[in-house]
Amino acid sequence: MSTTPQWVMIGGEGPESYNQHSSYQVYLFLYICVWFPKIRNFMCMYVCTVSSLICFHRELCWKPQKKKMNEAISAKLGLDLISDRFCVADFGCASGPNTFAAVKNIIDAVEDKYRKETGQNPEEDIEFQVLFNDFTNNDFNTLFQALPAGRRYYTAGVPGSFFGRVLPKQSFHIGVINYAFHFTSKIPKEITDRDSPLWNRDMHCTGFDEAVKKSYLDQYSVDTKNLLDARAEELVPGGLMLLFGSGLRDGVKMSETAKGMVMDFIGASLNDLAQQGVIEQEKVDSFSTPLYIAEEGELRQIIEEHGKFTIEAFEDIIHPNGEFPLDPKILAVSFRACCGALLSAHFGVDTMRKTFELVEVKAREEFSRIQNAKPGMQYLIVLRKN
Amino acid sequence: MSTTPQWVMIGGEGPESYNQHSSYQVYLFLYICVWFPKIRNFMCMYVCTVSSLICFHRELCWKPQKKKMNEAISAKLGLDLISDRFCVADFGCASGPNTFAAVKNIIDAVEDKYRKETGQNPEEDIEFQVLFNDFTNNDFNTLFQALPAGRRYYTAGVPGSFFGRVLPKQSFHIGVINYAFHFTSKIPKEITDRDSPLWNRDMHCTGFDEAVKKSYLDQYSVDTKNLLDARAEELVPGGLMLLFGSGLRDGVKMSETAKGMVMDFIGASLNDLAQQGVIEQEKVDSFSTPLYIAEEGELRQIIEEHGKFTIEAFEDIIHPNGEFPLDPKILAVSFRACCGALLSAHFGVDTMRKTFELVEVKAREEFSRIQNAKPGMQYLIVLRKN
Repeated sequence: MSTTPQWVMIGGEGPESYNQHSSYQVYLFLYICVWFPKIRNFMCMYVCTVSSLICFHRELCWKPQKKKMNEAISAKLGLDLISDRFCVADFGCASGPNTFAAVKNIIDAVEDKYRKETGQNPEEDIEFQVLFNDFTNNDFNTLFQALPAGRRYYTAGVPGSFFGRVLPKQSFHIGVINYAFHFTSKIPKEITDRDSPLWNRDMHCTGFDEAVKKSYLDQYSVDTKNLLDARAEELVPGGLMLLFGSGLRDGVKMSETAKGMVMDFIGASLNDLAQQGVIEQEKVDSFSTPLYIAEEGELRQIIEEHGKFTIEAFEDIIHPNGEFPLDPKILAVSFRACCGALLSAHFGVDTMRKTFELVEVKAREEFSRIQNAKPGMQYLIVLRKN
Repeated sequence: MSTTPQWVMIGGEGPESYNQHSSYQVYLFLYICVWFPKIRNFMCMYVCTVSSLICFHRELCWKPQKKKMNEAISAKLGLDLISDRFCVADFGCASGPNTFAAVKNIIDAVEDKYRKETGQNPEEDIEFQVLFNDFTNNDFNTLFQALPAGRRYYTAGVPGSFFGRVLPKQSFHIGVINYAFHFTSKIPKEITDRDSPLWNRDMHCTGFDEAVKKSYLDQYSVDTKNLLDARAEELVPGGLMLLFGSGLRDGVKMSETAKGMVMDFIGASLNDLAQQGVIEQEKVDSFSTPLYIAEEGELRQIIEEHGKFTIEAFEDIIHPNGEFPLDPKILAVSFRACCGALLSAHFGVDTMRKTFELVEVKAREEFSRIQNAKPGMQYLIVLRKN
């Protein structure tokens, strides 16, 4: 099994880096929140959903999302696990700064629980350690240099694929996967093989072809079970995994949702550029995304069949107003922030920029279809190690 | 206290990187071993001593050195500490590949002990984890990408100054510091202050000026006690610290030894370049090395006064033939490999190259003085946490 997908967030501080992209969205978000308070809630929801589609926004800045996590830790984490040393692990941390806010929220929640239930001061009693995991070719240098001053935890970077073991047995108490639980370790072979009946020109799994969908789902099931196997060994008994991610409601096809439609626009825009001779068609055809946005029922089935974790919560944390802010420009800018690095890596920066110009046009042309899209899903799954 | 010295090994794979420099010496060594077997032993000693002067060579390829370490682990590590999870920490690991050989030797020794004393197979029973620590601006990306295939330990990078805490309490069982125990956190202020009576134009502590030496030693004592404080918290009770380093026999001045003389040649060569107008004198005068090569008695006193560790062994592991291979060209090449990155960082690559051309000339001119130098010292200190 290839354990290092090609598609790893681009590190460093450069203009196309994940770090810069994520900062851009955070600044845009803060700017709008400050100057246009009437759409603050709308934008808050937007940042937490659009951006999260492709492993982007880990800041958990949407309060209800943080609240759900606090509730889960308060209710599901055994007090006996909170002792003098408490370890949090973020799997798929990337190089951007958003992971720091996510782990801070977890530590806050653990401290709150300890303070309330023991009456003791957690800062005197508990030493926290945060393990930041991502692929070996992740930009850990940027991650380490961005570590927040004044943090109250020890830090370590753990290189390696989260589809396999990266830590000794019983190494951590709470693990989190923020919008990386939809990754596969590779594109199913038959999807990229032109001679296969399952050869798929779409850059993602749209959900319309049952055989293609099954191929993606099979790969996703294998990978996810490997991931859960590894975490089951590494977690202390009773420890929690918190999975934030982008999903689908049962029976809804990816390309029936707004996020799937925008993914389709990206693919269509790449095809347009190939037809204009800007890029080669072959290059477009060989471009696929190693991810599978699973339906709730599929996720439940994989976890239950695996059997080493109990699903303590499976929450649809989507904003009541819907999954997306429906503005063509914002959609294009957001998906560029999410997927720009990925496209740049395969096609180069110029093509990436041209692609998202076309995506905006398509989003404008097909705006009524986006408005009538079926609802998507953003989940928080809380797993407890049996 | 500034906890990040300016002088950190240059990372990456570039021509002036620590990684490349250390590879160069290893290749040179292997080449000579293969083609000139008669001087193999001589070269082996040479690689282990010259290069180690400035935190360079961590490969512990000199067999007696490895043997001493094995003996220390066998005799001093409690069998009760070797359980299902055993953690080794390398403090000051840099980005080069040599650290991997050092930690492999430690793991081999722990497994040997376990195998001999229990009759059990350590590979079935023990999970090893290696923590690689260095400053936050160390090149961990290069380190992680060089991790040996087939290693039988889990890995984590721990960013932060080893003069302070970087790990939770009781996190590791054996710590090692390979030729980094002579660092100070900073140059003593009075040494670099032109208005101070202790202002010192030498780029290191030659040992000839008592007041200057005291100033360096005071700084070194403070830093080393901080380092030992931190490790005493982080080590499990009964855990070991293995300190490999470059020292001085009692009463011997740094510049009376061959390594001190070559350091003096570097300083003198920089002054020559300043007089030729190649670099500014001010730049040379402001160049000092944040390290102190301590005498055995000074090291013993610092550790004993600190009181949290017992000195289980203090071995002079110098080769019977002496500390250095006495060849001007090899000396210049070796010290360039050791100190090149440091000089490049302060003066640029061109000046660094010119400096070591002059160092070779000076080593040739003063060859008889080097031959009659007082003996230096390479130590292995084994500390056991009380």
